[in-house]
Amino acid sequence: MDKVIVGIDIGGTIVRAGAFDSNGNLLVMRETPIEAARGPERGLSKIQGLIEQVLAESRAQSLTGIGIGCTGPLDPARGTINNPFTLPTWEDVPVVGWLQKCFHVPVTLENDADAAALGEYWQGAGRNAKRLYAVTVGTGIGTALIIDGQIYRGLDDSHPEGGHMVLDTAGPVCYCKAHGCWESLCAGPAIERQAREADLTNSQLLRISSGEPEKIDARMVFESARMGDDVSLRIVERVSRYFAQGILNIATLFVPDVLVLSGGVMRSVDLFMPELQRTMQTCAEMVPANRIQIVPAQLGYYAGLYGGAYTIFNKHL
Amino acid sequence: MDKVIVGIDIGGTIVRAGAFDSNGNLLVMRETPIEAARGPERGLSKIQGLIEQVLAESRAQSLTGIGIGCTGPLDPARGTINNPFTLPTWEDVPVVGWLQKCFHVPVTLENDADAAALGEYWQGAGRNAKRLYAVTVGTGIGTALIIDGQIYRGLDDSHPEGGHMVLDTAGPVCYCKAHGCWESLCAGPAIERQAREADLTNSQLLRISSGEPEKIDARMVFESARMGDDVSLRIVERVSRYFAQGILNIATLFVPDVLVLSGGVMRSVDLFMPELQRTMQTCAEMVPANRIQIVPAQLGYYAGLYGGAYTIFNKHL
Repeated sequence: MDKVIVGIDIGGTIVRAGAFDSNGNLLVMRETPIEAARGPERGLSKIQGLIEQVLAESRAQSLTGIGIGCTGPLDPARGTINNPFTLPTWEDVPVVGWLQKCFHVPVTLENDADAAALGEYWQGAGRNAKRLYAVTVGTGIGTALIIDGQIYRGLDDSHPEGGHMVLDTAGPVCYCKAHGCWESLCAGPAIERQAREADLTNSQLLRISSGEPEKIDARMVFESARMGDDVSLRIVERVSRYFAQGILNIATLFVPDVLVLSGGVMRSVDLFMPELQRTMQTCAEMVPANRIQIVPAQLGYYAGLYGGAYTIFNKHL
Repeated sequence: MDKVIVGIDIGGTIVRAGAFDSNGNLLVMRETPIEAARGPERGLSKIQGLIEQVLAESRAQSLTGIGIGCTGPLDPARGTINNPFTLPTWEDVPVVGWLQKCFHVPVTLENDADAAALGEYWQGAGRNAKRLYAVTVGTGIGTALIIDGQIYRGLDDSHPEGGHMVLDTAGPVCYCKAHGCWESLCAGPAIERQAREADLTNSQLLRISSGEPEKIDARMVFESARMGDDVSLRIVERVSRYFAQGILNIATLFVPDVLVLSGGVMRSVDLFMPELQRTMQTCAEMVPANRIQIVPAQLGYYAGLYGGAYTIFNKHL
């Protein structure tokens, strides 16, 4: 292989590196635990090692650049990670400068939600969509807007947080300080909380969790709902309504060509679709909501790698 | 005057035309009732007459182009107005083609909310803001996003309708078919409805409206609230909470540099500010909300004229 681009995805648990050829094909991918709490220096060494590994395995003659997607907060312009929340001890870590020194190539840094959306734009579910809006529902709800292949940024290069739009001020309080934001109503922990707070007498959920409600996770709620469990069906119904309200608002405010859904909770998106489709018809008179393509993400865990690589592809190839 | 640009603002009641010099100074403005129900042909003749009038009065040697802001729905790409709602009988009216034939110059057509936001970007409250978000609260709630001086459009050039994001599904039904959208909770008619539905015994509102509750308008509610009237204060408090929730969501989803407020209801924005400021502090940890400049519009009724003229200025000067 002649020239390759390396994409990196730094998550709270795992860091992945992939080598791409100049047509955007993923040649090789490797991953390792990031062990963030053992300090950024050790983490950066691990990342350097991963890059060297995928370069060797892809038999690259030369490296065009390195594009990183990383769990935020971070500063794309300065190239620093500042995320002691999900990467404990990683405060103001100059990852871009450090990798530039190691490899002497262009290095970019983007929020992981933005990187994943870029990946889906480049090689996934929203190829070349003029306006792509991505919603990731997992432990939290992350959002990203890609316009003509460019990340939409807020003031001072900030990353908008659509997952924290407020849908019901009577809802539970979130770590964002608001009551009833989208994430507090629909993300995994919200689903789990509703299950633990419910009366589980005679519920399938209690059996699935071996009688330990504190072990119930969102996947179990979906599984029980499919088996017809009343408590689980009520939770799914409630979450569906809020999920649909959030998507309706995205449709009304952005009218994207493609809306890409990803994340662990969205693996059960079929449970949410009936309510979503009903709700989307509501706003079809104000905006052409019926022409918005709502599609599942295609790149799964690799979206961030693709997105990282695309930022280099776009600038340097 | 050498070259001039003409800006046109077509509203449901009044059409205005203004001549601008090439530095963006408004030289002369004229207006006339549009009398839309008497048919588009008659209306277009009136617009032609207005343009000829401002050209003559500005002593223009030549006309660079004509930029129109118009109450929607309309199709900017095709240059047609399709708004039998607030311009009765105006279905599929090719205003751009018609004016091109009359004046043999470039003609543009934009939604009035977009045009007004462009005007504020060019010569008003959000000059050269990288991201300007405009919210107009009057009979309805209109929104517009300007990125680097360009209108953000949805799919098929559609105009997003931020005023119809849903904030409380237990709220009143709107003509958009949703329950509890921003407009249904905070626009002028929503304020009037709340006053008419309240128990007005001993209320200042009853005196102001000469004992005829059906005559109460939003302005009267604000006036009574300032005089300490309990019913009016409760309405203002309720509307303030929803207004702040809507602005918080705009901040979270877009993080604009400047947020411009306009429209009849916003003339009393001081009544809404304490709750808004409290609420904005809520989201300051997720996005840099405290650095968003929230400012009143500066161009008032003329914003649409400026915006129309800017579309020509931007393309042809």
